[in-house]
Amino acid sequence: MEERKKIIIDTDPGIDDAMAIFVALQSPEVEVIGLTTIYGNVYTALATRNALHLLEIAGRTDIPVAEGSHVTITKGTKLRIADFVHGTDGLGNQNFPPPEGAQIEQSAVEFLTEQVNLHPGKVTVVALGPLTNIALAIESDPDFVKNVQQIILLGGAFSVNGNVNPAAEANIFGDPDAADIVFTSGADILAIGINVTHQVVLTDADRDKLAESSGKFAQYMCKILDVYFGYHHDAYSTKGVYLHDPTTILAAVDPSLITYVEGSVRVQTVGITRGLTLFYNKQKRFEEVTEWSDKPTVKVAVTVNGPAVVKLVMERLMNS
Amino acid sequence: MEERKKIIIDTDPGIDDAMAIFVALQSPEVEVIGLTTIYGNVYTALATRNALHLLEIAGRTDIPVAEGSHVTITKGTKLRIADFVHGTDGLGNQNFPPPEGAQIEQSAVEFLTEQVNLHPGKVTVVALGPLTNIALAIESDPDFVKNVQQIILLGGAFSVNGNVNPAAEANIFGDPDAADIVFTSGADILAIGINVTHQVVLTDADRDKLAESSGKFAQYMCKILDVYFGYHHDAYSTKGVYLHDPTTILAAVDPSLITYVEGSVRVQTVGITRGLTLFYNKQKRFEEVTEWSDKPTVKVAVTVNGPAVVKLVMERLMNS
Repeated sequence: MEERKKIIIDTDPGIDDAMAIFVALQSPEVEVIGLTTIYGNVYTALATRNALHLLEIAGRTDIPVAEGSHVTITKGTKLRIADFVHGTDGLGNQNFPPPEGAQIEQSAVEFLTEQVNLHPGKVTVVALGPLTNIALAIESDPDFVKNVQQIILLGGAFSVNGNVNPAAEANIFGDPDAADIVFTSGADILAIGINVTHQVVLTDADRDKLAESSGKFAQYMCKILDVYFGYHHDAYSTKGVYLHDPTTILAAVDPSLITYVEGSVRVQTVGITRGLTLFYNKQKRFEEVTEWSDKPTVKVAVTVNGPAVVKLVMERLMNS
Repeated sequence: MEERKKIIIDTDPGIDDAMAIFVALQSPEVEVIGLTTIYGNVYTALATRNALHLLEIAGRTDIPVAEGSHVTITKGTKLRIADFVHGTDGLGNQNFPPPEGAQIEQSAVEFLTEQVNLHPGKVTVVALGPLTNIALAIESDPDFVKNVQQIILLGGAFSVNGNVNPAAEANIFGDPDAADIVFTSGADILAIGINVTHQVVLTDADRDKLAESSGKFAQYMCKILDVYFGYHHDAYSTKGVYLHDPTTILAAVDPSLITYVEGSVRVQTVGITRGLTLFYNKQKRFEEVTEWSDKPTVKVAVTVNGPAVVKLVMERLMNS
């Protein structure tokens, strides 16, 4: 039997993070060996609380949670917390009781580097929030880039408008300096941008089906999805929600669900397009040396089988 | 009979500028009422010399040439001169004799504002180089934006890589501050970016046909095209050249050759993506006020009938 892919999910739960974590736990193709937490949809402390809560809901308190950075890599940057997307508690304003368990002693960076070095070439990091923890792991341990199997990240708006502003997607905008470190690190990177995740829509009808299911994850998700649907309706005039994080998890579970191109990516860290991800396809030979010229190649998703992703998400939430 | 559209061509000749000017002069749909000059493919003084030379070749010394700015709008910025694309003389290193005539006394900005105010709503400015003169006209005269019919500009790399570096197209990179002034001015703007002009390719076979023609413009172009073909071969591995400036002129001559979308455009003026054009399609309602939020709408070309443009260019050069 093929060894299951070990994954660590770096997460800021978050409604679609919750869905992604449940889908991962329901996916026999992968083994979730830990969660690390980060600010983004909520502050880091609440992300940790929510991560612990979600594992308790799943009955998987065997999986460790390591708390990540409370600040951006350059410090001093005001955090942008997307509570208007996910509710002030990050989970649809449901007022869930606090978790019984606690995070491990190790920090997210310590846990990431330890696990990646313990299983060289066997651990995939799926990053669902701003990339601070991943950049710190890269900077703190020269072996991390070499030993990590792949970093699959939800981030960027490649050749499309962002979701924070026309230039920037939320996770990259959350810590552009960290993102630039990750993209230029030389690790095997697969970026799933909103150019792809906006093709993966869970509709009202899908939600109704989830509601009719007796699956515990389906039931839980239906409780918390209202706020997320409301935000999408207001911001995008859609009757459905984008499955950003579940798509990213499923790219780890079944790589055939997406296609990608290869090139180098830099992140703009200042000015009006702060947080913009700029992909260079390496087609043109420029006269001058550019900021992309000698940078490592990364993978950037360009297509996704949206209906297949939605179907898989639904099945795994209902079959629980 | 419908009145011919009056156009002023702001230009930095330049091999494809030469082609664009000839095509304009051969187009009964438009009346070229003047050329204004700018740095870009060459320095401004040489652009003026070349503009005068081209009008003498065409036997159109009745058309005035007004010299434009020698520096960027913020001053102090080192100019980027694309002599490696067009030759050190801007016209394929042909060592043409100096022109007999001279530019008019008026500056480009004086000429632009005078003519636009003289014929309110009747003058289209076709800008083929960095946008310094146009931005100065906008800033110096509050009536310019109101009275100009349209500004059709060759500039930007919308959702594609640039040609100076992965982020920026040459004309916008040449003076990003000026470009941002133009895009946010409120004038009727139509931007033709390299996402569109890279679909308009003059091939080796087309050049052979031009060489067989007895048309004087066809003959002249064949003399100067070598350097331009050589550059494209080196930079893009293509056997053909992009018709940036002729496409932009033809967008004025026959608007049906292109389609466009509408939204607001800002130009990044600092950092690694300096010169990037970021189009906001106004689809999403953002939580925060953005740098695009209250900016006027402009038109950005998205498709072009490439074969029709090449055919029209060829016909008008050969029929001379």
